[in-house]
Amino acid sequence: MRVTALAGGTGAAKFLRGLTSCMNPRDLTVIGNTGDDTEIWGLHVSPDLDTLTYALTGRLDVARGWGLADDTFRALAAMGVLGGETWFRLGDRDLATHIYRSRALRAGVSLTGVTNAIGQALGLRIRLLPMSDDGVKTRIQTPDGWMSFQNYFVREKARARTIGIEYAGAEKAVPAPGVLDAIRTTNAVIVCPSNPITSIGPILSVPGIRAALMETNAIVLAISPIVGSAAVSGPAGELMSACGLPVSPVGVARTYTPWLDLLVIDRRDIKQTHAVLELGAEPVVTDTVMTDHASETALARLVLETLA
Amino acid sequence: MRVTALAGGTGAAKFLRGLTSCMNPRDLTVIGNTGDDTEIWGLHVSPDLDTLTYALTGRLDVARGWGLADDTFRALAAMGVLGGETWFRLGDRDLATHIYRSRALRAGVSLTGVTNAIGQALGLRIRLLPMSDDGVKTRIQTPDGWMSFQNYFVREKARARTIGIEYAGAEKAVPAPGVLDAIRTTNAVIVCPSNPITSIGPILSVPGIRAALMETNAIVLAISPIVGSAAVSGPAGELMSACGLPVSPVGVARTYTPWLDLLVIDRRDIKQTHAVLELGAEPVVTDTVMTDHASETALARLVLETLA
Repeated sequence: MRVTALAGGTGAAKFLRGLTSCMNPRDLTVIGNTGDDTEIWGLHVSPDLDTLTYALTGRLDVARGWGLADDTFRALAAMGVLGGETWFRLGDRDLATHIYRSRALRAGVSLTGVTNAIGQALGLRIRLLPMSDDGVKTRIQTPDGWMSFQNYFVREKARARTIGIEYAGAEKAVPAPGVLDAIRTTNAVIVCPSNPITSIGPILSVPGIRAALMETNAIVLAISPIVGSAAVSGPAGELMSACGLPVSPVGVARTYTPWLDLLVIDRRDIKQTHAVLELGAEPVVTDTVMTDHASETALARLVLETLA
Repeated sequence: MRVTALAGGTGAAKFLRGLTSCMNPRDLTVIGNTGDDTEIWGLHVSPDLDTLTYALTGRLDVARGWGLADDTFRALAAMGVLGGETWFRLGDRDLATHIYRSRALRAGVSLTGVTNAIGQALGLRIRLLPMSDDGVKTRIQTPDGWMSFQNYFVREKARARTIGIEYAGAEKAVPAPGVLDAIRTTNAVIVCPSNPITSIGPILSVPGIRAALMETNAIVLAISPIVGSAAVSGPAGELMSACGLPVSPVGVARTYTPWLDLLVIDRRDIKQTHAVLELGAEPVVTDTVMTDHASETALARLVLETLA
């Protein structure tokens, strides 16, 4: 079975790590969010693509959920002495990735091309595609004005009240080569347990991707990143509220219908099965919180069995 | 007494470290060679400016003669995994300097401006000027063709036979702001014990700098980097030969006359005093090889006494 996944960072990385231990990685295409991409120190940083690449090659710092395991921060400290910004913590070995990517992009290589090159070099066995080679920037509106996602999430620690969200540049963006085909010609599409607004939302904002999800014959399954009335991690709850969505699996279902077939929700949300069903998605109830490799694999196995 | 020095990397750094312990650093302007500047990983690297800045702020790795003391090379190792070039060893903390410089240059800051900003941030007390804000590239002609200085010196370890040297771009380069004034309005100009061909040569190749040296009322003193018939360090001998110069203090004198007043030579070369004098420079004989802080300071003190 060929699978195409839409993915953000941490939550997606956990689920996909489980998935790749249950299926042939060669049959998996992952479309990664680049709405969080940012420029730090003049370098192009792709946080979600890197988290996925690092996680799926066994390099991720699992405790932090970002960056490389056992990395050091000596360049960061030196940059601080020079007066450069230090709120975005780039590790020394991680830095090589951003420098490599930035040089390739300046030389005219596409983000698709450089993502592939990095994946190849690091031994990534799945196919990882950025959602687009064009810049789409997730921006958060707060009472003090608009800010980039990384400014909101990392620098301001997601403390600012959110009153709006936009995906700047999306209207002119084109899906990266292979993205639409990966949705149209696969057996199943899995929307990973990622933030619906800032991880999956930017992917859906690229013209053509929603239509491909509507048209595909593949079964489309999402895993709710919301358990109870809160996100398992990150600011998804606050951002869903700002978009007028209930912070619940029902809110997730509302974001993904009408193209969603199945929604995996946690046992704790069993009372929401009826409401999910009314929105046109079939609920699948299981344990969704991934705390270790065993729970990642168990969730992935259940998903594959459901899709089979 | 105000002093202006023309400087390359390691040898100059040693001498200037001695000089700054014998005079007020505020009265010292150093014009640094940028003919060795290169792009590594898409970053602008200025080896001589950095060696001088690091040395004069107590940060230089003294044993190696380049880079920062106690630096690590984790980004370099990671870049190797990605397939990037690793022959030019950029340390993790050193990398911050190159990233900082590259971003500033791309943002339109001049090399003079960014060199000053780095010096300020690191506590550099002298005034350090690049010879030019324009690109001048020292290139070495070998039997296999032309190569950049860093390719010749670092990647090929100066093993290739040299048949020619050029300073590409020099004809269109302009001295950096302050350079000509620093030569014209100072009390003394010191040509540091640097490679005459690849450290001082590029500085002299910038239109206007030789003329300023000819016209200045300042006394002009050079310290020979050649002792006996060999360079104290580096490929100066090979390069002088390739330029048809004797590898000796006389060869150094020939490079710097007619604007040179005094040439400091080593006691071992005492027999060359007459030949130096015939070229129009007055020889000053002393111990010139700097092996520790005491010998750096002793040479600097003798130079200042000679100039006083």
